[in-house]
Amino acid sequence: MTSPIKRVLLVGGTHGNELTGVFLVKKFQRVPKLIQRVTFETCTLLANPKACEVGRRYIDTDLNRCFEHQNLENLGLSTYEAQRAKVIYLTFGTGGSLEADFVVDLHSTTSNMGLTVIVGSHNPFNMQLAAYLSCINPNVKVLDSRRKASDNPYLDSICKFGCTIEVGAVAQGVLNATLFQQTEELVYAILDYVEAYNTGVLLAKKDTFTIYETIRTIDYPRDEFGKIQAMVHPRLQFRDYEALHPGEPLFLSFDGEDIIYDGDSVVYPVFINEAAYYEKGVAMHITQQHQIFSANI
Amino acid sequence: MTSPIKRVLLVGGTHGNELTGVFLVKKFQRVPKLIQRVTFETCTLLANPKACEVGRRYIDTDLNRCFEHQNLENLGLSTYEAQRAKVIYLTFGTGGSLEADFVVDLHSTTSNMGLTVIVGSHNPFNMQLAAYLSCINPNVKVLDSRRKASDNPYLDSICKFGCTIEVGAVAQGVLNATLFQQTEELVYAILDYVEAYNTGVLLAKKDTFTIYETIRTIDYPRDEFGKIQAMVHPRLQFRDYEALHPGEPLFLSFDGEDIIYDGDSVVYPVFINEAAYYEKGVAMHITQQHQIFSANI
Repeated sequence: MTSPIKRVLLVGGTHGNELTGVFLVKKFQRVPKLIQRVTFETCTLLANPKACEVGRRYIDTDLNRCFEHQNLENLGLSTYEAQRAKVIYLTFGTGGSLEADFVVDLHSTTSNMGLTVIVGSHNPFNMQLAAYLSCINPNVKVLDSRRKASDNPYLDSICKFGCTIEVGAVAQGVLNATLFQQTEELVYAILDYVEAYNTGVLLAKKDTFTIYETIRTIDYPRDEFGKIQAMVHPRLQFRDYEALHPGEPLFLSFDGEDIIYDGDSVVYPVFINEAAYYEKGVAMHITQQHQIFSANI
Repeated sequence: MTSPIKRVLLVGGTHGNELTGVFLVKKFQRVPKLIQRVTFETCTLLANPKACEVGRRYIDTDLNRCFEHQNLENLGLSTYEAQRAKVIYLTFGTGGSLEADFVVDLHSTTSNMGLTVIVGSHNPFNMQLAAYLSCINPNVKVLDSRRKASDNPYLDSICKFGCTIEVGAVAQGVLNATLFQQTEELVYAILDYVEAYNTGVLLAKKDTFTIYETIRTIDYPRDEFGKIQAMVHPRLQFRDYEALHPGEPLFLSFDGEDIIYDGDSVVYPVFINEAAYYEKGVAMHITQQHQIFSANI
């Protein structure tokens, strides 16, 4: 048998205005027995407490882009989030004082992502967990945003195993009770999966499951000064994970002109019209759909 | 005939993260002929440019609570928004260098308010305009948030006539193309109404229209430290302007308990789960529904 998971870290508030994770972590801190299991310890973390306090995504810079090793080792970086990332890594990361084997980072999004599990890396544990979650709840989508670079800026990369949960659509600064409850159930399913894994129990999976692989991003049309010139098209809004065919509209200009998807194959956009990505130059992520054979993981 | 409207002020970006108004005003500034009419001048204003630049509701304090006369006259107030309010009032307010007779302030909300026209005061011009807009578009709702106090903190109070447009549900920091287009049409309908008013033309209205009068607000259940203990109930979420009966659920606690509306009459909640109102201690506004006879305005 592979080595057991000894410590799981549940993170909320990596972005201070994504309230689902913030309030779930606070609930778990108030009622720890909800996340206690027999074979491992579960820790909780409010990752960006200052941003949570003021209800903003971040204070100085996006915490969920601060975990590349070269940055964690760079003592010259002095933003609040760069320092916070170091503290989190030194506590829960590999070799840390409370080293965790598996981390779940709870996010929400203004895109209609439903219940999305993002697998940051393709190791068998992450993939089998994703297969299990999509088997027990057909609403769960699995997104592969694996970066080609070996170094990874996301919080879920600090442990051996990890995933990010994105739930939406929900506005920043808003608690949606339905999504709160669905995310809570998903966390319990993850913890139960880890418990089964540790005790050698194989939980049911389907023969195949669907994974969406991010292949590139598309920015808003912009003028020479970088100002956006169009909006996500009404026919695409809230259509995350649905097929987009060549010739279908992507954007609507402020003057009412359609701007068309001119690719040559069917793709599946996600993170459509996420509020926090306007400043990142991202109107949506473009993915391809794959069927994965569970037996091949 | 009553005196004509000589200047109309269209305002966006009073809150920097409500993008519908921000981008509509930018469009009108780029293509001024869209808002030009024969009998009056139309001015545009991005009310809080610093907040727009950083994509936040405000820098120091809520600009749309800065327009009480005692504050406009208080030279000791030094927040960015307090100073900005004085500049706006001295320019477009009564006696200002570009005094406007009528102001339209464009907002958006995370609540499902559709196309709401808020009449700040009950003068016949405001009310007849509201009657006309709800006649030509059945999706338009009219909200009376008239304050009992004679002094009014809202931007739409700086002119003789004025209204606030609230469109939603849309997340902060997000452009929703459908709501953008609907708001644009509403602005043109307002300008056409003013043109007709100035030329003595009576535009069609129905005999009666519905108005929702705000009677009080309800806060989230909170603990002794002011921390919220419950979320808007899934059965109430996005149900703005729908009837709420005594005994129906208002909130869902983090532990899954229903919290019931214990009033003794049917009411119509609005601004349900507006992101910006968490800090104001407001989970929703409670309104009563009235039928207004157009002939009695």
